[in-house]
Amino acid sequence: MPKTSADPIENLATLIRCPSVTPAEGGALTALAAMLEPLGFTVERMIAREPGMPDIENLYARIGTEGPHLMFAGHTDVVPVGDEAAWTHDPFGAEISGGEMFGRGAVDMKGGIACFVAAVARQIGKNGPPKGSLSFLITGDEEGPAVNGTIKLLEWAATRGERWDACLVGEPTNPDQLGDMIKIGRRGSVSGTLTVHGVQGHAAYPHLADNAVRGVIALTDALMHPPFDAGTESFQPSNLEVTTIDTGNRATNVVPARASASFNIRFNDSWTAETVMAEIVRRLDAAAQDERLRPGRDPVRYDIEWAERPSHVFLTRNNQLIASLSGAVEAVTGRAPKLSTTGGTSDARFIKDYCPVVEFGLVGQTMHMVDERVAVADLETLTVIYETFIERWFGDARS
Amino acid sequence: MPKTSADPIENLATLIRCPSVTPAEGGALTALAAMLEPLGFTVERMIAREPGMPDIENLYARIGTEGPHLMFAGHTDVVPVGDEAAWTHDPFGAEISGGEMFGRGAVDMKGGIACFVAAVARQIGKNGPPKGSLSFLITGDEEGPAVNGTIKLLEWAATRGERWDACLVGEPTNPDQLGDMIKIGRRGSVSGTLTVHGVQGHAAYPHLADNAVRGVIALTDALMHPPFDAGTESFQPSNLEVTTIDTGNRATNVVPARASASFNIRFNDSWTAETVMAEIVRRLDAAAQDERLRPGRDPVRYDIEWAERPSHVFLTRNNQLIASLSGAVEAVTGRAPKLSTTGGTSDARFIKDYCPVVEFGLVGQTMHMVDERVAVADLETLTVIYETFIERWFGDARS
Repeated sequence: MPKTSADPIENLATLIRCPSVTPAEGGALTALAAMLEPLGFTVERMIAREPGMPDIENLYARIGTEGPHLMFAGHTDVVPVGDEAAWTHDPFGAEISGGEMFGRGAVDMKGGIACFVAAVARQIGKNGPPKGSLSFLITGDEEGPAVNGTIKLLEWAATRGERWDACLVGEPTNPDQLGDMIKIGRRGSVSGTLTVHGVQGHAAYPHLADNAVRGVIALTDALMHPPFDAGTESFQPSNLEVTTIDTGNRATNVVPARASASFNIRFNDSWTAETVMAEIVRRLDAAAQDERLRPGRDPVRYDIEWAERPSHVFLTRNNQLIASLSGAVEAVTGRAPKLSTTGGTSDARFIKDYCPVVEFGLVGQTMHMVDERVAVADLETLTVIYETFIERWFGDARS
Repeated sequence: MPKTSADPIENLATLIRCPSVTPAEGGALTALAAMLEPLGFTVERMIAREPGMPDIENLYARIGTEGPHLMFAGHTDVVPVGDEAAWTHDPFGAEISGGEMFGRGAVDMKGGIACFVAAVARQIGKNGPPKGSLSFLITGDEEGPAVNGTIKLLEWAATRGERWDACLVGEPTNPDQLGDMIKIGRRGSVSGTLTVHGVQGHAAYPHLADNAVRGVIALTDALMHPPFDAGTESFQPSNLEVTTIDTGNRATNVVPARASASFNIRFNDSWTAETVMAEIVRRLDAAAQDERLRPGRDPVRYDIEWAERPSHVFLTRNNQLIASLSGAVEAVTGRAPKLSTTGGTSDARFIKDYCPVVEFGLVGQTMHMVDERVAVADLETLTVIYETFIERWFGDARS
């Protein structure tokens, strides 16, 4: 067994040196395969294709044939470097400086993969192969459109008969310090664009025109107020942001006929994607027809276009999975992690349709930023947490 | 004395056939000079220059040296043809069909000039030169930026000692029928653009960002509500239109840092340009700092850029001028014209600094449109109205 795969620092340096900016594989999955195969994993590469999109390489690796079956999920693709001149270290150099390793993907989330590989290597070295099955489900399309990534890889594996009892996603979940936070669910997300159709005219004769800006303000105001809810036991309040309003009218003496607005709502478990979309339409229709907003005017004419595929809200209620992870974090760090449902969406939204899923990884502060970096000490700590989690989960799952 | 200058139809045909789309002179001022010089007018051409802008030809013509002094003001430049293929007649052909003369500028406002020339020619033919002075102040830059037009021509003439007792602007003022409306004032107009500066962020973490769209909606809402006033004895209510809101954010998961909005207010004589601008700033500041709109947030950061040169509101209170024109309209058409201050701005806003000014011309329905046209009968009627007005005004002014 090669020494390196038990060392998260070596593992991470190897992965960072692969320039796997979405959609490029960049050698990262090959490097990961080279770590897993010597441990006894069967590694398969699955290339996902979609017309008009670049092909995406994904990886599935499993050790063991029996249950219980624990999946580790993540991605080796990374976001672009950004302003390369602003980096103090080579973004693909994995240089260590001041106790931190620098590089794109250090925390999001090559670091999580590096630690889980090391944890598995140590467990196998100590106890032999797991009493059940362990698998890696790793995509190269998490930071991109996510069409050729986890969702297709899950379908592909499930079609081949793969079944899982639980999943850990290794995304960076800790806001400040290792041990802060486990994610046990995620809000849903729905986006849409509404277009208001007015009547163009001269600014001096507004009664002969119908200013689309007035309409779009009335409609967006109705989307933002009142709040959708006050939050639930497990979730923060749902929140809608109007992300853009555009008119494109350059003439100050012209009243514009058309204005558009896009919005995104992050909604909690008081809603489904369907009920929240219905509520949005209800609000828009009410505002469009509100005579107080438009004395003596016809209703606002508008249409709405929904962004493809909403993200559904979910909350994991598998106490054994949560307790194994939470207990491992507390045992290693001495801190009881917050069980949270905050933040954006992640690939966990796809996995939750197959098995209970939780998320725990590094500290996310520098993700997507210039000088993305990870404390070297955190890599060792996270490896120990993952190892403890694996031990506890298999112990609990078999008891 | 040539016969043609007493015939408004001939005069207008001559002017329409000059393609004087701003900034081109197109021969129109030369044609006008050829009508006025035989009547005894001293005609001067004044070319206005401005760095980075095309030179503009203007015309000033006067007959008489004594007071009282009546000015007729207008422009020979016209807006572009637009969709030429959609015209049923040559836009520079002055063709008559179905009792109407077709052509760009037919009503806005070569028609008004053609009628006033004819009226003056008839008066001189009947009574000899006016008992006082008559002048034409005609620009070629009313439909353009209006920088090298009436405002400079007035300064130029005033510097040479020209003083006027009253002015008639021959813009089309009648909404439906000749005799409907005299304009005795105009609302002021102020435009500006405000830019809201927020903090960009992820739509899932809006508390870490500051959505500029929220700020711009709060500010524009404060501009639109409540109404600025309920109107005055002589003016309709002031009205503000937000003419565009723009963000330009294409990413639905990003909260934008910047949004801008432009607005235009048409204000009545409850305000000056200065007080209305101060009120706008007061409203913006109040909304920016309104904690109810932004619980727990800093004030909205914004800046405002005012469009160059506001248009000042004015109301002509010269009863003799108004009575002469109003009486002439009623004597000829049998209808008492409405004394109005509605509509957009006109060059009268510059002239009012030199002498009392009123506006009366043709029916404006087809101005700026494809197939701009004037009823031939209206040309004769307007000529008689102008002739009656000239007679009454000089009679009253000297009595």
